[in-house]
Amino acid sequence: MSAPWRPWMQRALQLAALGSGRTSPNPLVGCVVLDAAGQLVGEGFHQRAGTPHAEVHALRQAGERARGGTAVVTLEPCCHHGRTPPCSEALLAAGVARVVVAMRDPDPRVAGGGIAQLQAAGIEVVEGVCEAEARQLNSAFIHRVEHGRPLGLLKWAMSLDGRTALPNGSSQWISGPAARARVYRLRSRCDAVIVGGGTVRADNPLLTTRGERTPEPLRVVISRSLDLPAQAQLWATAVAPTLVAHGPEAPAERRQQLDAAGVERLELERCEPLALLEQLAQRGCNQVLWECGPDLAAAALRQGCVQELAAVLAPKLLGGQAARTPLGDLGLVDVNQAEPWQLLGLQPLGADLCLQLSAQGSS
Amino acid sequence: MSAPWRPWMQRALQLAALGSGRTSPNPLVGCVVLDAAGQLVGEGFHQRAGTPHAEVHALRQAGERARGGTAVVTLEPCCHHGRTPPCSEALLAAGVARVVVAMRDPDPRVAGGGIAQLQAAGIEVVEGVCEAEARQLNSAFIHRVEHGRPLGLLKWAMSLDGRTALPNGSSQWISGPAARARVYRLRSRCDAVIVGGGTVRADNPLLTTRGERTPEPLRVVISRSLDLPAQAQLWATAVAPTLVAHGPEAPAERRQQLDAAGVERLELERCEPLALLEQLAQRGCNQVLWECGPDLAAAALRQGCVQELAAVLAPKLLGGQAARTPLGDLGLVDVNQAEPWQLLGLQPLGADLCLQLSAQGSS
Repeated sequence: MSAPWRPWMQRALQLAALGSGRTSPNPLVGCVVLDAAGQLVGEGFHQRAGTPHAEVHALRQAGERARGGTAVVTLEPCCHHGRTPPCSEALLAAGVARVVVAMRDPDPRVAGGGIAQLQAAGIEVVEGVCEAEARQLNSAFIHRVEHGRPLGLLKWAMSLDGRTALPNGSSQWISGPAARARVYRLRSRCDAVIVGGGTVRADNPLLTTRGERTPEPLRVVISRSLDLPAQAQLWATAVAPTLVAHGPEAPAERRQQLDAAGVERLELERCEPLALLEQLAQRGCNQVLWECGPDLAAAALRQGCVQELAAVLAPKLLGGQAARTPLGDLGLVDVNQAEPWQLLGLQPLGADLCLQLSAQGSS
Repeated sequence: MSAPWRPWMQRALQLAALGSGRTSPNPLVGCVVLDAAGQLVGEGFHQRAGTPHAEVHALRQAGERARGGTAVVTLEPCCHHGRTPPCSEALLAAGVARVVVAMRDPDPRVAGGGIAQLQAAGIEVVEGVCEAEARQLNSAFIHRVEHGRPLGLLKWAMSLDGRTALPNGSSQWISGPAARARVYRLRSRCDAVIVGGGTVRADNPLLTTRGERTPEPLRVVISRSLDLPAQAQLWATAVAPTLVAHGPEAPAERRQQLDAAGVERLELERCEPLALLEQLAQRGCNQVLWECGPDLAAAALRQGCVQELAAVLAPKLLGGQAARTPLGDLGLVDVNQAEPWQLLGLQPLGADLCLQLSAQGSS
């Protein structure tokens, strides 16, 4: 009987979403605690990695009223000692009689172990309540745990005729202010924002959320040979952290310039999107935003580093045989090789349209 | 007091639309006739150039009951002898007491003259009822009368990354069956469908409405030097008429080949979109569909030969530096030179989206 728990789980999901963009490498988790009579006595959500989990916040608020009651949690409670003690133990100590969870934690350190521990202690566990919504909420965390790399979101703004710049390279501004504000919000959902060296050279971007997320996402430049300008907004790391990934072939002199400027460097054995994402996963990134030019975008797609697209379409015609387009070569020889993407949403942003899509079958 | 006439004018507009795609060079016109008590006694619409006008059909249906009544017409009644007698005289003969019109006829042979003739005979004339809707319905006719060339609709199908073909030229099929059926309907609204020689060579298109419009729209090829294949679906003129426009430089041998195949030719002094449209206007085309490649599309845009766009967007990524895009060079050097187009509609077609736009300030 999962139906009576759905409204409480929906509230727990709302709570979980309040941590959006701030919990990585952890998932978003929300919890409500009901007393034995079914009255709401506690609410909580996970606010930031290293701080108490959702269950702890909600149980603290409930106090003694949790005894004999029900905890409704968006994710299976953890059963391992991480930076905080296991939540399964906190639930046992609080004396709840029942735990309702939306989905099992795919983290191999949990993976059903939390539920087993609760059941072994005689607690009733109800699973699968609002599971689809819970999986959607934590799609980035799930993707990172299951694939060992963050979920990739590729974003571009183009004209109605598919151009991201004029033949002379001019691209400011194809989209309007509402679409640009939307990009700040997209960044705020992500743990890192990635560009290539060409974008740094051409646009000298700032790549922050303009305060929508604190701390700002990690700004990442991937540049095989470190052919980068000496002066760039990205080198001012007091505004936001910056990481420059490069290949083994990067000259010592250019490495030293970045080191002297206080910019973090990361040498990759193969300076490619997949290798970068594996490193970013190890740094706790659940989701990254690709804000790069056509060649890096195409390389990221070819290496399976893009699961979602956000395409802003401006109602203008730019034209031009030599004008830049969103993607470089994908190696297709037949149109039928192009897998259809699934349209998730279509949002008017001033005069522009933002299309959100996901790869079919991606999680 | 136009308000009480709005429902009747809306009915007249519905009737007018029944002639869609078949009245050129004439406008779409609908008419309802009410008796002296305000009861509906006649309906009619203009069905085809050379056949009776809407007023005549409605008055015939009303008969003697029109006397002392009201005729509600979507366009000012004509006052000139064309292929049929003037409608103003038919209204006078029927003895109506009042004529309600949505808009004046921009045709210089009418241009208020029909209304003046009715008023001079003592008939009350109410103007401007549902004028915006009426102007929209006849936007192509109005454009042709005011500018001396048909309204141009440019259509393309592209991938999410703005490609109309793969780098190897493969383009079948970027869009799905629903979007292709939509193209037949777009053609059925038009009097001519225009392609360049490159499209004939690459795609050997049929360019018909597959029976959505009878007769089929004129199929037009514009090819400066007549570098065209000897065999092509377009040369089978039993299916639909075909016109090949070329420049003075077209070799005699190629002209003779077309003549021998029974395909109509048109020599243009300057083989350009604008010159072609002026000729098509003289042949009675109110609206044309540009279904051409990027260079001809860009040339048409640059010469002001495109007032509406229909862009089908397929949720696929094709990629490719060398891949074809919708438009060739438009000569812009600053993004701010690109005038925004107005989004009129957004229609899902299977997995695809069809965006319809109009140039700002175009009629």
